[in-house]
Amino acid sequence: MIKTKYIDNEIKYIGSQLSPHWIYKNFNIMGDAIVAFCGECDVKLSEMVDIEDVINNEPIYSKYMLSFITEQFNVGLTEGVLRQRLLISIIKENLEKYGFKITRNGDDLIVDGKKLSVSIATKSITSILIHTGLNILSEGAPVKASGLKSELGIEDIKTFATEIMQAYAEEIQDIKLAATKVRGVYE
Amino acid sequence: MIKTKYIDNEIKYIGSQLSPHWIYKNFNIMGDAIVAFCGECDVKLSEMVDIEDVINNEPIYSKYMLSFITEQFNVGLTEGVLRQRLLISIIKENLEKYGFKITRNGDDLIVDGKKLSVSIATKSITSILIHTGLNILSEGAPVKASGLKSELGIEDIKTFATEIMQAYAEEIQDIKLAATKVRGVYE
Amino acid sequence: MIKTKYIDNEIKYIGSQLSPHWIYKNFNIMGDAIVAFCGECDVKLSEMVDIEDVINNEPIYSKYMLSFITEQFNVGLTEGVLRQRLLISIIKENLEKYGFKITRNGDDLIVDGKKLSVSIATKSITSILIHTGLNILSEGAPVKASGLKSELGIEDIKTFATEIMQAYAEEIQDIKLAATKVRGVYE
Amino acid sequence: MIKTKYIDNEIKYIGSQLSPHWIYKNFNIMGDAIVAFCGECDVKLSEMVDIEDVINNEPIYSKYMLSFITEQFNVGLTEGVLRQRLLISIIKENLEKYGFKITRNGDDLIVDGKKLSVSIATKSITSILIHTGLNILSEGAPVKASGLKSELGIEDIKTFATEIMQAYAEEIQDIKLAATKVRGVYE
Amino acid sequence: MIKTKYIDNEIKYIGSQLSPHWIYKNFNIMGDAIVAFCGECDVKLSEMVDIEDVINNEPIYSKYMLSFITEQFNVGLTEGVLRQRLLISIIKENLEKYGFKITRNGDDLIVDGKKLSVSIATKSITSILIHTGLNILSEGAPVKASGLKSELGIEDIKTFATEIMQAYAEEIQDIKLAATKVRGVYE
Amino acid sequence: MIKTKYIDNEIKYIGSQLSPHWIYKNFNIMGDAIVAFCGECDVKLSEMVDIEDVINNEPIYSKYMLSFITEQFNVGLTEGVLRQRLLISIIKENLEKYGFKITRNGDDLIVDGKKLSVSIATKSITSILIHTGLNILSEGAPVKASGLKSELGIEDIKTFATEIMQAYAEEIQDIKLAATKVRGVYE
Repeated sequence: MIKTKYIDNEIKYIGSQLSPHWIYKNFNIMGDAIVAFCGECDVKLSEMVDIEDVINNEPIYSKYMLSFITEQFNVGLTEGVLRQRLLISIIKENLEKYGFKITRNGDDLIVDGKKLSVSIATKSITSILIHTGLNILSEGAPVKASGLKSELGIEDIKTFATEIMQAYAEEIQDIKLAATKVRGVYE
Repeated sequence: MIKTKYIDNEIKYIGSQLSPHWIYKNFNIMGDAIVAFCGECDVKLSEMVDIEDVINNEPIYSKYMLSFITEQFNVGLTEGVLRQRLLISIIKENLEKYGFKITRNGDDLIVDGKKLSVSIATKSITSILIHTGLNILSEGAPVKASGLKSELGIEDIKTFATEIMQAYAEEIQDIKLAATKVRGVYE
Repeated sequence: MIKTKYIDNEIKYIGSQLSPHWIYKNFNIMGDAIVAFCGECDVKLSEMVDIEDVINNEPIYSKYMLSFITEQFNVGLTEGVLRQRLLISIIKENLEKYGFKITRNGDDLIVDGKKLSVSIATKSITSILIHTGLNILSEGAPVKASGLKSELGIEDIKTFATEIMQAYAEEIQDIKLAATKVRGVYE
Repeated sequence: MIKTKYIDNEIKYIGSQLSPHWIYKNFNIMGDAIVAFCGECDVKLSEMVDIEDVINNEPIYSKYMLSFITEQFNVGLTEGVLRQRLLISIIKENLEKYGFKITRNGDDLIVDGKKLSVSIATKSITSILIHTGLNILSEGAPVKASGLKSELGIEDIKTFATEIMQAYAEEIQDIKLAATKVRGVYE
Repeated sequence: MIKTKYIDNEIKYIGSQLSPHWIYKNFNIMGDAIVAFCGECDVKLSEMVDIEDVINNEPIYSKYMLSFITEQFNVGLTEGVLRQRLLISIIKENLEKYGFKITRNGDDLIVDGKKLSVSIATKSITSILIHTGLNILSEGAPVKASGLKSELGIEDIKTFATEIMQAYAEEIQDIKLAATKVRGVYE
Repeated sequence: MIKTKYIDNEIKYIGSQLSPHWIYKNFNIMGDAIVAFCGECDVKLSEMVDIEDVINNEPIYSKYMLSFITEQFNVGLTEGVLRQRLLISIIKENLEKYGFKITRNGDDLIVDGKKLSVSIATKSITSILIHTGLNILSEGAPVKASGLKSELGIEDIKTFATEIMQAYAEEIQDIKLAATKVRGVYE
């Protein structure tokens, strides 16, 4: 099963963390894993993996953000993007448990017309990597933004993040099992 | 892009439709496709591909159901299950646009504690196949069930189904493109 | 991790057990698994998956055999054959711990010039399947054979089999992790 | 079939040789290949691909080592690690033919409680690469070590290495054929 | 390298030959192989693997045809169709060496507006299979057809077929090597 | 479908263009694409991806060349080389429509014993990339060369290139569909 860890120390996310084995090297967690941490998010164009954002000259900034990083091995990138969309759906569903009404648009989450999230999925030679960030504080964002704390009033970010990582790890496990319990079909 | 088609004729879903090229042979749609139709759903144990249901002796029945069948080629089964979960999330999100509050539990959709859906994903030699069924009428179901019409009051099933197929086809297309617009990462 | 189970009841191995989800349907173990059991082994040509044996008209018979069956999902057949060879190596190594000198020749184990084992790996639509059988009693075998009990004097087959399954499950797990802990290389 | 070559010239192994097309560029052998050579082995932490060793601060040193390098194309990394384990098993079996008793622990070979080998498998964009080194001389090693010559008394390293490469190339070929001679199974 | 064999005995092609291990079982050629033979070709709708032809009610008939069957393992179907197109191109090029002007349209070969060939590629659990047939005699064909002998005057079918099989086996080998001799590219 | 674009501006091809997302970043075409442009071609050894050419010390030069670059995602390199051979066949066939007699030798096109083309296929982390260049002017080439204009007299390079790109995009689409319209085969 995907290992999960909430990192209590603040980490400034600058894009370089979306790198193979960053989790393993920094937190000694080997294999498929998802971690979460809080901190400023400031990704310069030169660090961005989303070429569309580079072309559109849209760097990423958030004064204070909850970031999830997951690395999963032996997976192609299209499947990696599907695993990203699943993470986004699970975040949406966890927010719904808190009573919020959220709209998902691909890998974006929107509350009251304001952007809550950024996300990207990419590939290394041996793995896929996903970053998903949720604003905690919305001020200073380059677009109309919403924040988990500033707009939604969620105070206990650690519990919120841990619930999401747990649900994600369990559903990926469930999906792998779902692929083992059906008979193939013929014509 | 995945082709979509709403089939106006009623079809009784008995499980045999979850078969390679059923869409192509019956509706002359070649390649990746999703179709929807209405009719009774009555899948005997002998026709079920979900071995878990067979072990638990849980045949599927619905007096009147909206069924989606999608066949997609050149995809592994784990990725196929992820594509199933995406379809379930999109159905949930479309119901939310209609104003309903829906809970997703893996590949199950639940309204007010009552089961709205059944779903399975499987593999043939050349493709993955997904069936997702939503009760239109809930009476006679083997479990506490909800229906699109009987409980939720949705009358225009064709529009509802078409919206879902369109959103699904567009998001799969978007996911494929998302895998082409990011630079790989190194260490 | 691959689940392991020693089945105390005798099972006559006739080839039909090398079938997708045989483990799941009979022992309710979902996902990657290896099981072991004892019984007569009598595989008719019509049941054999090894076409080479069919061409050579070599049915398989053993009066009393320890059989391992493993099913593993989301794996190609070449990798499946490599996983078979690993199982054979682990059986050889476990016999060495008991003090025996064993020769491996591909997927055959040989003791004192006599054949101890039969093995085959094949594929279903969703999985690879391996059967490896070790004679417990050698009499009546179609070739010069050795038996775990009749020649080697191993009495506690259950412990012997359980050690092998445990070592195999651990090494497959270790191999999966080994693929997650190395940086890729460039030129 | 995998091409094999024993390189008579000494080569100091510093890790940089575990690089895509190193064999092709240096020895003009195109395609899947395994080569062997002798020389000092001195891999600094900065050159290591095994992140676990880097984390544990365990550089590799051997005063005089027999190194095997193999590059194989169109293979995933998990299968690459399985092909590494096969190489280790074959080395063990060749040593057994010389009359030694060897223990394998994953990708380590141990004689009389002393480590004989180092090994790693990794991936490039187009291939997997494996390095396996066997101490010839054990003095100066960072752990309790055994050497082919210093402890085991094997003088003709070239013959020993050539036997291993030959057996490895033949078994990989045999494994590929084994995947072509079985009928698939259905349920 | 793909093994090649011209079968001197006549074989009536009825579609059932496009089956996994047909080459191995009948001619004892293990692994990737291509064979050629002559005979009547009469494929009923019930035996056809091309569903498009079934839908269009287009059975295949040729009074006397040169048929190629190739089975190749560990290949996906899209790649299998590319390998089919390569075979078609090589047949075209061999005909050009004989001085003929040929047009290729996908997997069809056309001479002077008349159809020379039929072809299909499909998949089994462990392999891809291709049938390509070239009319030797054109009379009795269901469409305007050309024949190697009746229109083009080629008498020595065995030499012609052998040249094609040899060129095909060599180019597949060359393609595999071409994938091993380029460095990967980065951004 | 693969997007196509003829670039009217001259571009000097120096090898650096065979790089992931070069098409997307420069022409804002996302996803599978093929582009064509004219210009001098001057690839130094240090920029070459074909290691065979580097070993043989064969840099590439053409005074004026029509270059095709295609990037296709989610494809392995062996399949990428097959897609390169298809492009070469399509160029040959388009030249035949213009009335020329062309010989293909792997990925080389030859007219009257003179080399018309250069081509290479390689891989990035997320895609395969192909460059195929056709001399427009043959003078100054390092080998006996032919040119589209200087020898063959083709004046309208843009139309010629556009026909090829269109035919290539259509056939790749046709190949993908061909893999969706056949039933799998069993034994």
